[in-house]
Amino acid sequence: MQNAITTLQDGPGPRTGSLAGVSAGIARGVCRYLAAAGYGCLLETPLRSGRRADVMAIGPQGEIVIVEIKSGPQDFRTDRKWPDYREFCDRFYFAVDQAFPVALIPEEVGLLIADRYGAAELRASARHPLPGARRKAVSLGFARLAALRLQATLDPQAPHGLL
Amino acid sequence: MQNAITTLQDGPGPRTGSLAGVSAGIARGVCRYLAAAGYGCLLETPLRSGRRADVMAIGPQGEIVIVEIKSGPQDFRTDRKWPDYREFCDRFYFAVDQAFPVALIPEEVGLLIADRYGAAELRASARHPLPGARRKAVSLGFARLAALRLQATLDPQAPHGLL
Repeated sequence: MQNAITTLQDGPGPRTGSLAGVSAGIARGVCRYLAAAGYGCLLETPLRSGRRADVMAIGPQGEIVIVEIKSGPQDFRTDRKWPDYREFCDRFYFAVDQAFPVALIPEEVGLLIADRYGAAELRASARHPLPGARRKAVSLGFARLAALRLQATLDPQAPHGLL
Repeated sequence: MQNAITTLQDGPGPRTGSLAGVSAGIARGVCRYLAAAGYGCLLETPLRSGRRADVMAIGPQGEIVIVEIKSGPQDFRTDRKWPDYREFCDRFYFAVDQAFPVALIPEEVGLLIADRYGAAELRASARHPLPGARRKAVSLGFARLAALRLQATLDPQAPHGLL
């Protein structure tokens, strides 16, 4: 929760050389891109599998997108968990910065190139529609988490045990 | 949108004599109460009817609650629109402060007594379950709006045309 807030509130410039900083900038740009397309976005969204999605977004028709951010080749190569995320979304993307060697990214997933200010879709994701019950559970969890985080931001003195 | 943020970020004490101030305090208390019960809350949530719900909340099982805030008897007596809200929720409540003459509130709706720090349920709302398609539309709109407002709070420089 705290991390998710910190990432978007990150300072005015890039923190070069810091993997956390690169990821934070990409996350901000990805969220701006998705918001402009009508998606509501949440960072670090917990999934029932126990993992967290870097960015989860829900679109005007209820489409659920997960974007995993890769700060560099090493970050990608050490990630064995990304195929699991496809069980929780209709479309799955990686997001990387311009310096990333995009040939590393498997062809069957979507690809966004991002910086701190926005993103562009280099390759669309295949659509693998969620089963109805899973979609409902993911959407509901998203709705409550977004509202609880908003409330925690606006009313920080309130007791919050639910995030 | 701006109003919704302003309300929860309201100053440290009550603004007595101001209807806006009374309503803002009640809204904060209601949201704290609902959050403690596991509900995610949004203020001033637009409905397809063109109206706005003072507080809309979504619970752990997807239950949708609307709470209309009444700052005083005059505010209640001039409100002809509240029955419409029941078409957009499973339970409907009024929320008032301790000074409100609660006999004015119709018996068929729920009633919360609130201050800036919390609320108590004086009377439960009847449950009038939403049809499936309406529930889906309301939940989806809630999810996107909550996430877009959170993003607008965390990344205020981003272009936001969707709120």
